[in-house]
Amino acid sequence: MEFEIHPRLLADCYCLGRLGACHLLLHRNASLPWFILVPETDATDLLDLEPKVREAVLDACALVSAYIKTEFRVSKVNFAAIGNLVPQLHLHLVGRIPGDPCWPAPVWGNLDPGPEYSPAQVTAIRAALRTQAGLIPTPDDTP
Amino acid sequence: MEFEIHPRLLADCYCLGRLGACHLLLHRNASLPWFILVPETDATDLLDLEPKVREAVLDACALVSAYIKTEFRVSKVNFAAIGNLVPQLHLHLVGRIPGDPCWPAPVWGNLDPGPEYSPAQVTAIRAALRTQAGLIPTPDDTP
Repeated sequence: MEFEIHPRLLADCYCLGRLGACHLLLHRNASLPWFILVPETDATDLLDLEPKVREAVLDACALVSAYIKTEFRVSKVNFAAIGNLVPQLHLHLVGRIPGDPCWPAPVWGNLDPGPEYSPAQVTAIRAALRTQAGLIPTPDDTP
Repeated sequence: MEFEIHPRLLADCYCLGRLGACHLLLHRNASLPWFILVPETDATDLLDLEPKVREAVLDACALVSAYIKTEFRVSKVNFAAIGNLVPQLHLHLVGRIPGDPCWPAPVWGNLDPGPEYSPAQVTAIRAALRTQAGLIPTPDDTP
C-alpha cells in the first residue's frame, strides 16, 4: 500500500518534496520557519527505528537544520518527535531566535496563528532546498 | 576544564550516572517518567553534532527509551531537543500514555508540579538502568 501522509499534517502544511526516505513539509504558519519531516515508516517513535534507518532520517534532518539556520538567520533549531495528537512519526524542526513570536516557549500549543507564505516564497524555499539539501519534487507536492 | 551540567538542570533533576558520553538525569516531577540526557559537548543543537557523535548520543537515547517503555509501561516516548531556556544541549525523553497528567499536550510548560520520587524509587531506577542500559555511577550522582 502506498504511504500516505496523515491528513492533519496535510491540512497544516505545504508538501515540499522528498528528502531521502522522508517527505518534507513546511508548516503554513509563516511567523517562524517550521519544517516537518515524515519518514516513510510504520514506526511511531524515532527512537524505535533501526539505527541505520534512524541515521538516514537524522542526516536528512541535519541538512534541513543547516538550511534553516543559513536562510532564516536563526541561532537555534528546536527538534522534536512528539506525536501525541498525530500518531504517524513526524519530526519537527523549528528555527528559533530570541524575540520571535513565542520565544522562549516551545511552538507546540503556544504559537498564535500567523500569515501564510506566498506562492513565490514557497517556490523560493523549494528551490533553495533542492540546491542545499537535495530536495526532490514529487507528484504530491502542494502546487 | 571539566564538564559541568547547567545549574537549572541540576536543580530540576536527579543525576543518575553516565551513559556513554552523556549524563543521565531524571526530572524530579514523578507524575511522568521524564529523563534528560546531557551529552558532553559544547554544541548547543543536536543536529549540529558530527554524525558519529550524534549516533552515539542517539544510541544512548534509544536504550533509555526502551527502558522507559518497558518499566513504566507507556506506549510513547516524546523526544525533544529544545534548549530555549537552558542553552546547554540536553535531550528530553518523556514516557507518555493517553490519560497521563498532561495528555495530549507536550510536557514543556504544561505539566503541573507533582510528587518527587522517594530515595528507594531513585535507587531502583538506577539499578534497572545499570542492568538494562549500562548506566555507570559517578561521583556527581545525586545521593
